[in-house]
Amino acid sequence: MKTRTLSGQLDKSQVGQKVSLKGWVQRRRDLGEIIFIDLRDRSGIVQVVFNGEEAQNAHAIADQVRSEYVIEVHGEVVERDPETYNPKIKTGEIEVKAENIVVLNTSNTPPFSLTDEKDVSEDVRLKYRYLDLRRESMQETFKLRHQATQVIRQFLNEEAFLEMETPMLTKSTPEGARDYLVPSRVHEGYFYALPQSPQLFKQLLMVAGFEKYYQFARCFRDEDLRADRQPEFTQIDIETSFMSMEEIMAMTERMMKKVMKEVKGIDIETPFIRIPYQEAMDRFGSDKPDTRFAMELVNLTETVKDSSFKVFRQAVENGGKVSAINLKGEAENYSRKDLDHLTEFAKIYGAKGLAWLKAEAGSLAGPIAKFFENEELQTFREKLDVNDGDIIFFVADKEQVVYDTLGAVRIKLATDHNLIDETKFNFLWVTDWPLLEYDEDAKRYTAAHHPFTMPFEEDIDLLETDPGKVRAQAYDLVLNGYELGGGSLRIYKREMQNRMFESLGFTKEQAEEQFGFLLNALEYGAPPHGGIAVGYDRLIMLLSGRTNLRDTILFPKTASASDIMTEAPNAVDDKQLNELHLKLK
Amino acid sequence: MKTRTLSGQLDKSQVGQKVSLKGWVQRRRDLGEIIFIDLRDRSGIVQVVFNGEEAQNAHAIADQVRSEYVIEVHGEVVERDPETYNPKIKTGEIEVKAENIVVLNTSNTPPFSLTDEKDVSEDVRLKYRYLDLRRESMQETFKLRHQATQVIRQFLNEEAFLEMETPMLTKSTPEGARDYLVPSRVHEGYFYALPQSPQLFKQLLMVAGFEKYYQFARCFRDEDLRADRQPEFTQIDIETSFMSMEEIMAMTERMMKKVMKEVKGIDIETPFIRIPYQEAMDRFGSDKPDTRFAMELVNLTETVKDSSFKVFRQAVENGGKVSAINLKGEAENYSRKDLDHLTEFAKIYGAKGLAWLKAEAGSLAGPIAKFFENEELQTFREKLDVNDGDIIFFVADKEQVVYDTLGAVRIKLATDHNLIDETKFNFLWVTDWPLLEYDEDAKRYTAAHHPFTMPFEEDIDLLETDPGKVRAQAYDLVLNGYELGGGSLRIYKREMQNRMFESLGFTKEQAEEQFGFLLNALEYGAPPHGGIAVGYDRLIMLLSGRTNLRDTILFPKTASASDIMTEAPNAVDDKQLNELHLKLK
Repeated sequence: MKTRTLSGQLDKSQVGQKVSLKGWVQRRRDLGEIIFIDLRDRSGIVQVVFNGEEAQNAHAIADQVRSEYVIEVHGEVVERDPETYNPKIKTGEIEVKAENIVVLNTSNTPPFSLTDEKDVSEDVRLKYRYLDLRRESMQETFKLRHQATQVIRQFLNEEAFLEMETPMLTKSTPEGARDYLVPSRVHEGYFYALPQSPQLFKQLLMVAGFEKYYQFARCFRDEDLRADRQPEFTQIDIETSFMSMEEIMAMTERMMKKVMKEVKGIDIETPFIRIPYQEAMDRFGSDKPDTRFAMELVNLTETVKDSSFKVFRQAVENGGKVSAINLKGEAENYSRKDLDHLTEFAKIYGAKGLAWLKAEAGSLAGPIAKFFENEELQTFREKLDVNDGDIIFFVADKEQVVYDTLGAVRIKLATDHNLIDETKFNFLWVTDWPLLEYDEDAKRYTAAHHPFTMPFEEDIDLLETDPGKVRAQAYDLVLNGYELGGGSLRIYKREMQNRMFESLGFTKEQAEEQFGFLLNALEYGAPPHGGIAVGYDRLIMLLSGRTNLRDTILFPKTASASDIMTEAPNAVDDKQLNELHLKLK
Repeated sequence: MKTRTLSGQLDKSQVGQKVSLKGWVQRRRDLGEIIFIDLRDRSGIVQVVFNGEEAQNAHAIADQVRSEYVIEVHGEVVERDPETYNPKIKTGEIEVKAENIVVLNTSNTPPFSLTDEKDVSEDVRLKYRYLDLRRESMQETFKLRHQATQVIRQFLNEEAFLEMETPMLTKSTPEGARDYLVPSRVHEGYFYALPQSPQLFKQLLMVAGFEKYYQFARCFRDEDLRADRQPEFTQIDIETSFMSMEEIMAMTERMMKKVMKEVKGIDIETPFIRIPYQEAMDRFGSDKPDTRFAMELVNLTETVKDSSFKVFRQAVENGGKVSAINLKGEAENYSRKDLDHLTEFAKIYGAKGLAWLKAEAGSLAGPIAKFFENEELQTFREKLDVNDGDIIFFVADKEQVVYDTLGAVRIKLATDHNLIDETKFNFLWVTDWPLLEYDEDAKRYTAAHHPFTMPFEEDIDLLETDPGKVRAQAYDLVLNGYELGGGSLRIYKREMQNRMFESLGFTKEQAEEQFGFLLNALEYGAPPHGGIAVGYDRLIMLLSGRTNLRDTILFPKTASASDIMTEAPNAVDDKQLNELHLKLK
């Protein structure tokens, strides 16, 4: 049998050659004596011609084939009549004159068109995922994923990283509320947990002297499904010894620069800008700011603290703040009803309301305008860089509510008014994170990242006196408003780790029980180390210009339990249930 | 701070340069005014000299450091006095004259020597895995693993394969007895299973038109631990469309040739020899023959079928067989006691005994010699190529017992007498496997590989008439007596898959329930496809010349449940137990 030729690689240089093609029937046009079949394989599409006079048998078989049949065709590459060149496909200047054809497999009629992405519900796409994945855009996404994976690996290999495989069956951790548990038959009465990240293992690899580790690590979280979250996900997991925070960030930037260049052909600028956490909140109302557009939050607390507008004044008196954003030139497009809708949206984020003022005739107008002195209104105009025709939105509340609400309103307005340049890839770092967060429910501090994060040297002594003020040597990588990754330097001295656990309210025994293996390791020459983890599914989503995370995953899970293996776990039958119970007794 | 220099990369060309080193104290020798420290990092070792007169401070600190402390040293590269060249280390012609030293971290005294592998129990090694992994041989193994991974990826990328990630949380399959089950919180009353292999998913990827897939796939089996088995393991998982069995085998050979060349520097010959399954059993008593030595089984059934030695004759009369192996030149080393021991060993494999004859004076002698005519003894000598001084061992039993016993005795004798050339890498294929095996317990046929394996075209009609005779289009890759991998062409037509399930005693409903997603996929233009899976941990074990599979895994599991996360799953506490139960209600 002849060597197979790939459809998409045919061009005029092969005219006159005999070829053997295998692939799927993309389209078939029957003109009686002539039948055209667009033959598709992974490499592309080529037109095959069956002439009833010249190849009677082949023509008769071609007459029977239908969309998505799998066929093998032998024939000769011929140039098309220039008038029939098809510029839409790469092979459009030639076609293959079929001499014979073999049907390798038949196909039912596909339930949706594989050439047109519109009007297919995701449920149907997932039910027939093997067909959905044949579509060009899905093929391209997974080719891009493959390519990005190889580029990143090549980069890390060249930087002397070792790819290493950490266990998937591990011990449950204190954040175990989200651990998937796996009962063991061999150790009756015991279970494993699936890792939410290889954090402990990668730190142990540093203690073990490997110095530079990476892995495309599958991680698991037993949480509700959301559009941007899957119970299993992949992260580029990186850990290094002896590298400073600056060095790790610079290495990550080189990695991203290389991916952007080789996968997207885009030169991005490095170093990435850095925004301290507090500044990100103040300016964007978000710890993952989208800087592809402006409309930044402006702090008006000082301006309104003695205002006669009670709502603003009281928010400040209660320790809160007042901020505003300016939507340029859209005042006239906001009816009373639009404003009510926007207020409802704002309330989702905790705000009691959304105040607004429209800029006209050199001042500001609206129901609340009357509460302000003219001087105050002019200050608003100056601080928010207002021109007539703009509309500004205020939130006055506790600090976090102001951030959450205006941060969300800012994104919504930018989306509604197409203010986002979709061709931009704005990478940035958010730095100077708080090490600890106060948990109102538990009445104690918890680790903002994880309990192995190193505090800033100069903040350490605040751990016992003012824990909320301690900053972490941590950095989050943000791309276009998405948190792409995060990392930190880790604690590498036992004594410091003990202090950290004390701040978190762990007893010595609790710390030992949960993290004894790591704590012991810190006593045997643990090197200074740190790393980063980058959400890989999300990176692929952004690189491929998609908005649905599930489109970057071959067989994603969905919220409905159903009969297809990709969507849902098994129903528990009685026998299996009993077995599981027995094991847990 | 100066850029870090790697210890192992220093040589005479850097003499006179100032360097900054970071790493571990491998060894410290205190000669009073002079202290030598062997500084180790991932790249190697270099000797650092602290001179009490020239660098008083550094000397004073060096006086305090101990083994496995983490230090940073600044100093100058100087050539050693040629008389003190150390040829044992790569950097042995130079040393670093320390100007200052910083202790980055201290270390307790390690519980075992990191330079000497002897006399450390595996339990202790695993308890302090982070120290065990610092040892040179372990570092080398995981560097080799990294390198082999990259070589294989590069090969597959160049052959147009796409690396793709299949799900880890999947549906349980009929071979579910060994599935790990994962209860879900989101879908109450449901659970996932961890994959024993990505078999179904990789077939679906072929139906989806990706044509060439690979993955370093983590797989799971909830089975008893054995020396050569871990509950989670990695396989190189490969699937292709439109490739013949010959093409897949040739591709695999190219892959192995490349790994052997680039990782071991060894040219192996391709194509690999092929041994049909039945021949492998007849000649080696094994479906994974070790061909690094001869001592093949010789079938004597015809010779002894009318023998006056009842044990042999009856074995044949009962449908069994008689085979023997010849251990050359060792007759004199086998005392009565040795032979008794060997007989006990043989009984493990089901044999009732192990008959033997020693070759002397041109004939054969031993307790059973008297039962044979001289002509029969001469036939034994001829068929087994016997010379005086040889000893031959017979087993007469059911076919399978003969194979199992003589196969095991053959390996044992070769090991005991050092007949195996450990420098050889004998790759071979075992082909022509039976498609089905009769399960005596279940009283039905089961799939010898898995139910998606394609039978030989010419054997298909035996499926309904003589199922045991049907051969599979399957191939196992064997290296030095280990099963390294296995693959097959898969069934790609729905009708054929239905016939297969019928042969396995599945009802239509059972097949639908378990494999509906794949069965439906076969109706929508599934291409001819097939693939292979190669056990990666085992490959690394053989490439690194190791015999313990756990030495190729960073954090392996062991049989004992203990307090370290790498060895054992969690104990179930009451709260967690209740939660699990609740979820399963």
